[in-house]
Amino acid sequence: MSLDYLFRPRTIAVVGASRNREKVGNVIFRNVASTFRGKVYPVNNKSETIEGVQSYKSLKDIQDDVDLAIISVPRESVPGVMEEAGEKGVRSAIVITSGFREVGEEGEKLEREVASIANKYGIRFLGPNTMGLLTPDYNGTFAFADVKRGEIALVVQSGGIGAYMLNWAQKSRTGVSFLVSLGNQTDVKEYEVIDYLAKDPETKAIFVYIEGVSDGEKFLNVVPEATSRKPVIFIKGGASAQSAEAVKTHTGSLAGSYEVFKAAIKTVGGIFVENLKDFLNLSKLVNSSEPIREEILVVTNSGGHGVLTSDAISRAGLSLVKIPERLNMELRKVLPPQSIPKNPLDLSGDAGRDRYLNSLKIVSDLDCTKLVIVESLPFISCTEVAKVLLNFKGKGIIGVTMGYDEDSASRILESASIPVFTFPEEAVNAISKLVKRPSPRRKVRVTQPIDSARELSKGKSFLADYEGLKLMELYGIRTPRWGIANTLEEAQRLADSIGYPVVMKISTDQPVHKTELKGVYMNVERDMVKEKFDLLSKISKRVMIQEQLTGLEAYVGGIRDPVFGHTVLIGVGGIYVEVLKSVSYGIAPVYEDEALEMLRESKLLDMIRARKRGYDEGSVIRTVSNISRLILDLNVKEMDINPLMVNEKGAFAVDVRVTF
Amino acid sequence: MSLDYLFRPRTIAVVGASRNREKVGNVIFRNVASTFRGKVYPVNNKSETIEGVQSYKSLKDIQDDVDLAIISVPRESVPGVMEEAGEKGVRSAIVITSGFREVGEEGEKLEREVASIANKYGIRFLGPNTMGLLTPDYNGTFAFADVKRGEIALVVQSGGIGAYMLNWAQKSRTGVSFLVSLGNQTDVKEYEVIDYLAKDPETKAIFVYIEGVSDGEKFLNVVPEATSRKPVIFIKGGASAQSAEAVKTHTGSLAGSYEVFKAAIKTVGGIFVENLKDFLNLSKLVNSSEPIREEILVVTNSGGHGVLTSDAISRAGLSLVKIPERLNMELRKVLPPQSIPKNPLDLSGDAGRDRYLNSLKIVSDLDCTKLVIVESLPFISCTEVAKVLLNFKGKGIIGVTMGYDEDSASRILESASIPVFTFPEEAVNAISKLVKRPSPRRKVRVTQPIDSARELSKGKSFLADYEGLKLMELYGIRTPRWGIANTLEEAQRLADSIGYPVVMKISTDQPVHKTELKGVYMNVERDMVKEKFDLLSKISKRVMIQEQLTGLEAYVGGIRDPVFGHTVLIGVGGIYVEVLKSVSYGIAPVYEDEALEMLRESKLLDMIRARKRGYDEGSVIRTVSNISRLILDLNVKEMDINPLMVNEKGAFAVDVRVTF
Repeated sequence: MSLDYLFRPRTIAVVGASRNREKVGNVIFRNVASTFRGKVYPVNNKSETIEGVQSYKSLKDIQDDVDLAIISVPRESVPGVMEEAGEKGVRSAIVITSGFREVGEEGEKLEREVASIANKYGIRFLGPNTMGLLTPDYNGTFAFADVKRGEIALVVQSGGIGAYMLNWAQKSRTGVSFLVSLGNQTDVKEYEVIDYLAKDPETKAIFVYIEGVSDGEKFLNVVPEATSRKPVIFIKGGASAQSAEAVKTHTGSLAGSYEVFKAAIKTVGGIFVENLKDFLNLSKLVNSSEPIREEILVVTNSGGHGVLTSDAISRAGLSLVKIPERLNMELRKVLPPQSIPKNPLDLSGDAGRDRYLNSLKIVSDLDCTKLVIVESLPFISCTEVAKVLLNFKGKGIIGVTMGYDEDSASRILESASIPVFTFPEEAVNAISKLVKRPSPRRKVRVTQPIDSARELSKGKSFLADYEGLKLMELYGIRTPRWGIANTLEEAQRLADSIGYPVVMKISTDQPVHKTELKGVYMNVERDMVKEKFDLLSKISKRVMIQEQLTGLEAYVGGIRDPVFGHTVLIGVGGIYVEVLKSVSYGIAPVYEDEALEMLRESKLLDMIRARKRGYDEGSVIRTVSNISRLILDLNVKEMDINPLMVNEKGAFAVDVRVTF
Repeated sequence: MSLDYLFRPRTIAVVGASRNREKVGNVIFRNVASTFRGKVYPVNNKSETIEGVQSYKSLKDIQDDVDLAIISVPRESVPGVMEEAGEKGVRSAIVITSGFREVGEEGEKLEREVASIANKYGIRFLGPNTMGLLTPDYNGTFAFADVKRGEIALVVQSGGIGAYMLNWAQKSRTGVSFLVSLGNQTDVKEYEVIDYLAKDPETKAIFVYIEGVSDGEKFLNVVPEATSRKPVIFIKGGASAQSAEAVKTHTGSLAGSYEVFKAAIKTVGGIFVENLKDFLNLSKLVNSSEPIREEILVVTNSGGHGVLTSDAISRAGLSLVKIPERLNMELRKVLPPQSIPKNPLDLSGDAGRDRYLNSLKIVSDLDCTKLVIVESLPFISCTEVAKVLLNFKGKGIIGVTMGYDEDSASRILESASIPVFTFPEEAVNAISKLVKRPSPRRKVRVTQPIDSARELSKGKSFLADYEGLKLMELYGIRTPRWGIANTLEEAQRLADSIGYPVVMKISTDQPVHKTELKGVYMNVERDMVKEKFDLLSKISKRVMIQEQLTGLEAYVGGIRDPVFGHTVLIGVGGIYVEVLKSVSYGIAPVYEDEALEMLRESKLLDMIRARKRGYDEGSVIRTVSNISRLILDLNVKEMDINPLMVNEKGAFAVDVRVTF
């Protein structure tokens, strides 16, 4: 059912409306009444007059249709109110009340009860444990921020963060279309809200503070469409183990793995930021209409600021645009005699209003972001330059005002919707986040296991090592030549046919660290086979003989994330996987272009390409992609190939462990 | 000669003082005249009345002794003025004028002329190309900031950054003791200024913006004493290649390697920050008297903020203090019934002034930093909490105010010298920088080359490979067993005595990449010696036979940095040195404890310790330390050991390249 009744109701009842101005139920009633143009009905079991309006004892006493009930009553009364709402035919609800899943088992039970009643009557509801909902039509929250109507939607899984964002919006004069405090997401989920807001024509960008995603699969399905319409920016609370614990008690949601979450955000085309500051800085860019480009021209009256800004640009992977020679000639005419025009364009400390104006005129048509930095000096104030910049609105202008009058300069630019920052690094980082945002990818998770692979894994909770190698072959992943020997004779025959030197190792049913068990011998020559066989057969009855390959050791793994499902990991292989932490994550299925990007991110690509040895990167890409399909097909719980040996002949799975 | 005449003059002349209020020479005169209590003499060749004061035609016309001449005349006139100053007996000067080394050769010549005149008369001078000097006694700059007298000294190698810092200080009401704009550092150098300020009792911390150090050796000698007295914070302009170029044209200084610079700052015990924002945030902490601890208690009225702050604390490597059970019992009494006291301490969204006050009373004596975050909610404002915090001054309090009235709340805390931030992450990062600052180390660079090592390197610009190995042995660094064979017979005898398998490779005089020349064979068994010898001797007449070792491949290198001199690099070895970029730098000599820290930083330590193979980390530490002495002793230009093979028996230099 559509969320329209929630987001665009025609009538609202506030249940638990209170006379006491210190109570949430009073604040919400006042907020709704002062903003909503439709009818608002206070409901209070004492039947009081609230803020001059006669209240109703029950929802059922209201004669009118009620589209939305905002419920702020003690938690024990919530199921009763929901039942009444159902009987009355209320279409949607916001349950402000807290004390449910987030406080433990008893609360969780109550929450399920509320959900089941709502479900019975087809009532969609936000919360419980929510700060409420603010829309262009009404303020159904208990925050009293006087926020400007605008184009940014805020979706938060923490009331505190929501209240802060409203405060911030008010203070920074940022226009907000919606604020959705998700609460416990018992019914209405974050992906539905994101979807709704993506289609809302008044919303230009969506900011999401999230602690745990309600349903990873749906999230992966729904959000790519949203991000293809407008920027969706995510910040996740609960990155560290400590805070993941705080998150659990806080809204009772499961904080999935931070790394997989980041990979998921990349997949759906979201912008990932690490902290509130970056979140707010990005809003300055998405809230303006300035075209933002990856190439940057820095204009400043301080050489030092130019230097620091170049540093930041280089760190962020952006680039300085080259000023065409023709324009340099023009610039020479407006700069002091000793100045050499270049980028950063240093107008010198004695630059006044005119030098800014004339220089910007010359470069204004360059197709790049113009980062104009001004610090107040005896010859100029930030305010003067801000006024100059108004002439170049729409030319990709971003202001950085650094000086005693930076606040008033900022206000001038803000009211013209020109983005303005107080530090160049902040501007640069925000630009980088915006222009380098990933393309949304839709993960089509079909499964079509190869018959023999299904056969191999049927009813098992793990594969024996040789089964793992067979599985690779079934999925088109190459392995070194190998065989299993139960006797010395077999071992010798096998080694002879493989060719020396060979690797000899124990062959086990369960996934184990063979090296740690001293169960692996490299460089085994013909005359050493017997000795090694004797040693190994003391540890395991089967001995594996394998062709010895040389090359680069990579690592490819797969996991089933509790939130986002099957995910592939790749990194530097061998025994230093954990040490180097040079790992890249990809949500399955991983398409070939994504696999290439994962190789790049994990630095494996540089390693494969090092020294021009002709190592076969195509095979690695294909392996990553095949593994991503394999783990989906067979619903693998955890697997790894370590090492995947890469050389000029291809990529070879040497050791494979799989659990289901 | 002491810098006292410059920093604490009794009389000042302003040469080039001007009537025109738009001119630098006027602004400076006004700034000096309005701040300095001693006599100020304007000097102007037109003998005008300047700001109501009769000017002198020449310094020599002044009857009084002149301690300091501030010179702001056209650049061609500077040598003449300096000569006059010398004849007059002026003790010190500030040369504001620009157009010297920073604009090219001609300017550089003029600069040398000025220096030689000053030197002749023993005049110490700041600049040229400086914005001037601000001290507790006078404002000798052409910035007109009205800065509060205080305890932070600013040293800048960019006038623009200097002007900005003054603006910032004015705006943020930060007290400043000195602002030193270094300019071209022709005479007075940054290390002298840092040394002077470190001994100044009015200065509590020193902030340095630097683009290039004038003399690395002196810097390394002088600055450790300064940092042992008070925090010295460095920011370097010119990190990227692009900006290093901007720096050269900007103040004409050589921007040394950024990584070596960072290592040098660590060595001298400085705090390194990457951008102005971090620079300014740190100033909030050093400017207050709150005791700042590594362990943190977070107190907030928003769960989400608590979560994000925990994330930041964990990322910064700081820790959340554990609240003792006894205090938790106390806290339960002042928190709402369902709240569970823990860290972050979430006072809940309905917390008012009293709940903040009562909770803080309970925890105030805990020996930790108390990060108190408040967002304005219907039940509380930032200002109210700011007032509460005043009661806990001196208890390690840091405020984070997030809300519509955050500015006024900040002002309340600032005037009580309690640090206040607008984002928790900023507070956390500043704490981390401060509490984790390195201990200063004095590098005692003695050289005492071993006779035979000196013999080996005498007159050479590089060593042959076998000489490199011999050099290792002279410096107590182990090598695999090895020898040189000129004939097949020698090769076979050698390989027999070393034991199989061996490594056979070309032996060259010049440093080359042997692998790239296909000049290395591993795993050579007895029956392969002839074949390989034949192949190798086609490339080089000498063939090296080496014991084949297994283990971890590390990399140890040495360079002679143009600024800071000999420096050791370590990292992951083998062919991926450049790819993994997991490198740590250390200024020579590297002491054993520093070597251990370098191992940690480069992740080599984790790799050595992985899988508990008993690899000999002591040998690696000793090798790093020995190499640092070797490069000093022999004045090595560049060298590397790649790989240094590390295993349970020790660390072995396998391949060594040395150039002088």
